[in-house]
Amino acid sequence: MDKLYIIKIGGNIIDNEAGLSAFLDLFAALAGKKVLVHGGGKLATQLAAELNVQQQLVDGRRITDAGTLRIVTMVYAGLINKKIVASLQSKGSNAMGLTGADGNVITAHKRIHKTIDYGFVGDVDTINTTFVAALLKQGLDLVFAPITHDKEGQLLNTNADTIAQELARAMSKEYDVQLIYSFEKAGVLLDTNDDTTVIKTIDAATYQSLRERQLIFAGMIPKLDNAFEALRSGVSKVIIGRGEQLPELIAGQAGTTITDAA
Amino acid sequence: MDKLYIIKIGGNIIDNEAGLSAFLDLFAALAGKKVLVHGGGKLATQLAAELNVQQQLVDGRRITDAGTLRIVTMVYAGLINKKIVASLQSKGSNAMGLTGADGNVITAHKRIHKTIDYGFVGDVDTINTTFVAALLKQGLDLVFAPITHDKEGQLLNTNADTIAQELARAMSKEYDVQLIYSFEKAGVLLDTNDDTTVIKTIDAATYQSLRERQLIFAGMIPKLDNAFEALRSGVSKVIIGRGEQLPELIAGQAGTTITDAA
Repeated sequence: MDKLYIIKIGGNIIDNEAGLSAFLDLFAALAGKKVLVHGGGKLATQLAAELNVQQQLVDGRRITDAGTLRIVTMVYAGLINKKIVASLQSKGSNAMGLTGADGNVITAHKRIHKTIDYGFVGDVDTINTTFVAALLKQGLDLVFAPITHDKEGQLLNTNADTIAQELARAMSKEYDVQLIYSFEKAGVLLDTNDDTTVIKTIDAATYQSLRERQLIFAGMIPKLDNAFEALRSGVSKVIIGRGEQLPELIAGQAGTTITDAA
Repeated sequence: MDKLYIIKIGGNIIDNEAGLSAFLDLFAALAGKKVLVHGGGKLATQLAAELNVQQQLVDGRRITDAGTLRIVTMVYAGLINKKIVASLQSKGSNAMGLTGADGNVITAHKRIHKTIDYGFVGDVDTINTTFVAALLKQGLDLVFAPITHDKEGQLLNTNADTIAQELARAMSKEYDVQLIYSFEKAGVLLDTNDDTTVIKTIDAATYQSLRERQLIFAGMIPKLDNAFEALRSGVSKVIIGRGEQLPELIAGQAGTTITDAA
């Protein structure tokens, strides 16, 4: 099985022009098949403020109303995606940008929830793995914006972590997938304020034990639960750490590697 | 040779939601390989006004400064392109959106002009015909936003008519290309205010004669010159008319067909 790297980057990299360029150098230099999934960072929030579009919150949850969907479509699928693609093209990576609508690659449905209407938020239904594989075989590096569609003409806003995870799970049928979450910390830390306390490897038994001893920071638990779910779905490895250390993360010299399924 | 339709639509279709949907029904229903190139319409101007970005004019020419490039990247590559792609997906067309940066499909250089600095305006250098053909062979309908790149990381704003023309010329090496310009008039008219005066067919001799008799509206001359240039480069047919009449345009029952080269 060919290796496939699926790498998610968030606002801490996207919002810093020099940092983004440095990260994209590392991404472009990475040999083999690879997919980048980007979130939105502060640019969408900035544009919303410029346009006086208020952030809608219901019970503390962010809602994607029509005005917000317009903004994220412009910022994620337009500005950020194309900036990344053009930058990668200048660095020797034959990048191509995609939303879920393009080539019908990711379908989703509007989130169904008993009490909260999340608006135009999409939960993933299908990944067109044949299409993704065909593009990768053409030597393209794929750059996904966190926008999906419902196959009925509606664009939807989908969390970038989820897109990375769903792509990784689906593509693991054809590839040896390593899923890398770039993060503002050096990895999963025993002390969240101390980057030297990275836990190098977590397997199911370690995770159980760390949780019982309450050594895992609460904010990390959903990320780790997702990582184990990915492993159970066939993903080979999940790595959490700083995108700035991409080669070291892949070499196992930095970050936290989550390795085996329960 | 397989037929390939390259269809350019402008603001008169894009700005009208019902009209756009009706046009996309026709586009989706068109059998065979096809490419859609869209302009921007009023949405970019509207967003510029909302963001208080002033239109820069030098000697009466529009300039794409950094603020305008940001807006057109968001509106053309994000909002309009993804709306069209999602809509086509709901209508049975397996659409995929592209800018020139994606898959390095259209490279351009910043326009060089003796006296005017047009800013981030790109003149086309190369079309990656192999890549376009490979995507078409996968059964995709391609939707191009009028944004290109210079292969050095810079996105550029390129006229949608030009993109359609350059694609048509380049793809005519592999396909029997028909280039269709959708337009707010029924075709090339003898009387610009009377849609019943459509000139059905124009060849080089007719064009010469019509020009000599000053029967061609000045605004149409560059369009017709471009059409003849396309024919000289191998394009089979150029058709000018209303996108709302797409099947009739292709059947030669509406619009103006420009057929042979000088």
